[in-house]
Amino acid sequence: MFRQNKLLSSSVLYTSSHNSVISEEGNQENIMSSTVGQVIRCKGKPLVIEEVDVAPPQQMEVRLKILFTSLCHTDVCFWEAKNQKDVYITALLLVFRIVESMGEGVTELAPGDHVLLVFAGECKNCAHCKSEESNMCSLLRINTYKGVMIRDGHSRFSINGKPIYHFVGTSTFSEYTVVHVGCLAKINPLAPLDKVCVLSCGILTGLGATLNVAKPTKGSSVAVFGLGAVGLAAAEGTRIAGASRIIGVDLNASKFELAKKFDVTKFVNPKEYNKPVQEVTAEITNGGVDRSAECTGHIDAMIFAFECHDGWVVAVLVGVPRKEAVFKTHPMNLLNERTLKGTFFGNYKPRSDLPSVVEKYMNKELELEKFITHQLPFSFINKAFDHVERIRPSLHHPYRSLN
Amino acid sequence: MFRQNKLLSSSVLYTSSHNSVISEEGNQENIMSSTVGQVIRCKGKPLVIEEVDVAPPQQMEVRLKILFTSLCHTDVCFWEAKNQKDVYITALLLVFRIVESMGEGVTELAPGDHVLLVFAGECKNCAHCKSEESNMCSLLRINTYKGVMIRDGHSRFSINGKPIYHFVGTSTFSEYTVVHVGCLAKINPLAPLDKVCVLSCGILTGLGATLNVAKPTKGSSVAVFGLGAVGLAAAEGTRIAGASRIIGVDLNASKFELAKKFDVTKFVNPKEYNKPVQEVTAEITNGGVDRSAECTGHIDAMIFAFECHDGWVVAVLVGVPRKEAVFKTHPMNLLNERTLKGTFFGNYKPRSDLPSVVEKYMNKELELEKFITHQLPFSFINKAFDHVERIRPSLHHPYRSLN
Repeated sequence: MFRQNKLLSSSVLYTSSHNSVISEEGNQENIMSSTVGQVIRCKGKPLVIEEVDVAPPQQMEVRLKILFTSLCHTDVCFWEAKNQKDVYITALLLVFRIVESMGEGVTELAPGDHVLLVFAGECKNCAHCKSEESNMCSLLRINTYKGVMIRDGHSRFSINGKPIYHFVGTSTFSEYTVVHVGCLAKINPLAPLDKVCVLSCGILTGLGATLNVAKPTKGSSVAVFGLGAVGLAAAEGTRIAGASRIIGVDLNASKFELAKKFDVTKFVNPKEYNKPVQEVTAEITNGGVDRSAECTGHIDAMIFAFECHDGWVVAVLVGVPRKEAVFKTHPMNLLNERTLKGTFFGNYKPRSDLPSVVEKYMNKELELEKFITHQLPFSFINKAFDHVERIRPSLHHPYRSLN
Repeated sequence: MFRQNKLLSSSVLYTSSHNSVISEEGNQENIMSSTVGQVIRCKGKPLVIEEVDVAPPQQMEVRLKILFTSLCHTDVCFWEAKNQKDVYITALLLVFRIVESMGEGVTELAPGDHVLLVFAGECKNCAHCKSEESNMCSLLRINTYKGVMIRDGHSRFSINGKPIYHFVGTSTFSEYTVVHVGCLAKINPLAPLDKVCVLSCGILTGLGATLNVAKPTKGSSVAVFGLGAVGLAAAEGTRIAGASRIIGVDLNASKFELAKKFDVTKFVNPKEYNKPVQEVTAEITNGGVDRSAECTGHIDAMIFAFECHDGWVVAVLVGVPRKEAVFKTHPMNLLNERTLKGTFFGNYKPRSDLPSVVEKYMNKELELEKFITHQLPFSFINKAFDHVERIRPSLHHPYRSLN
């Protein structure tokens, strides 16, 4: 068993709004030379740092060296949630990694390959993966939440022989991690690591919500509910699609300034009006927006987004709702030709689609720099959590009631 | 003022299932020669026949000679509904007509043109008509329900000088009628009148629900809830789209035999199972259907149709719900990438799209004969109402509860 005690130099990135991106920077050369086939001991932490042994990858698994990672608001949600397994490797969902070693059956990757690691997997064998209409892999959508590897039901992490659970299939607050190969997208090795590392989870979900799901036509209008990182990514997808007008809706006026970078030209703060948001947007657009993306998870905002147009609106639900939330509407609102959709991971198939999204950045179609506001060493990870946590309450402010 | 007292010879068609088609057959030659610019007195009836004067068309209006017409279940719904205006010309929504004369501003039509008349209009000037994403004409979608002409707020029908109201912009239980030009689709004069007359309202709504809205891919599976004429038309649209499997869901087992003509190969009667319908269809299809069309208007069936697949189902609501109906679902059902849509008139733009639907019949892509089971003289109109009314209760049987 091999333990790596030396921590690599690292840094942390902060992204715009409530989404924080953290990166670990290290010497990319020779980092895999002496570790292949060995257990690696790392330091990681939710709020404290522990030395952790990382076992070699098994069949269809890959062990990775983490270079850049980031903190998504989902991390905070899970971290705060009840009924979590007691001890786990915290997992930053937005990560850039380099393949260290692979288990049996992994043929697509080689040591040194540059990969993005995401919680949404793609086994390429299930009905969902084989369908052109789904990215909800039957194997990896559910099993990555179990905290152990699919192969044998055991963890690859341990401290002094005691197993430590994985986290949503990624476990990226660790210098090394072991994941199912289906969660890895091999990308262009020329892509700058400190930029494309933000491509995952929230950014891809928002981007895909408009580019892949709402599909605004050129010259159309789009309302984005919630101007956090997901909402801003939805705006970015809208801009790329060629829409002519993006209306941002948020209860937190401080988000409006940053949103201008994302071509959000009109801002609506529901607190400033004595009528439903959909009436305000209808007046602004002389009838209603063509598309809407709901990025708050608040049930009222979902209904507003759905009712944004009398006729042809396509509303895409992105935000994760509270457990007790119920979407209610009269069926005639649908018979009037509104479309209601939702998205998981922006409808991107991770292995198949992410490489092309990286290329969108490489050819300057997608502007990732706008999402990055801070870069910090990995040792500042607690600061990242604090930052995400501090602004979270604004996401849960009640929207104006329907009645 | 001119009154036409002579009734033309007429006949009535009955269509499959609960939808009845009625046609009036007359000598198509020389029927307009002596009536242009004159008031025409007709006989029509809801249940009794009255002589009615039909005034000449005004600006953007057309007066038509009715040759074939039919009875849609919507007629019965309106006929039974409360708060209707006391006296009106009953309106069979599925009609074939020949232009008798036109008012000022009508440039697309000439006397003798063959047209289909529908309740859904297309003014070609409003935002909805100019959008490629809507067929819900702002001018004619609402105003045709007022019972009078848009031009001057008056009716063109009268009995001994007393105005008689129009009905949903069509008023087709009359030998002649006056309508807005936006409700008329000029069609191929070679199309057989006794077949293409069924193309309107229910048939087009069901056909478009699958062909235009659900858009099943080749080889896919589709569940149709409700095997009345609308549901059978949805099955016909599914067949044309190239789907490989159509599952029919209905509480009335007697409908299954006829449905076989429409390529419905598997039948599910919810009363025969002790589990929710969506579980039954999921077992039949090893996961769930790819598309579903809800053609009953029952709220439970709408929810079943929406939950027919764990992932990529596109559910289209077609049936008109009860006033108090509420569609309820947890937003996670949408975030799991289901799509919920509704349709009005099958998303067809009447003037723009109907001629091409007639061509689909002419080139044998669309099989209209399957919808026609009886042909009757117009004087048998009460029999048609009785027929539609008699089988209606089966549409309102409660579906199996969700819980």
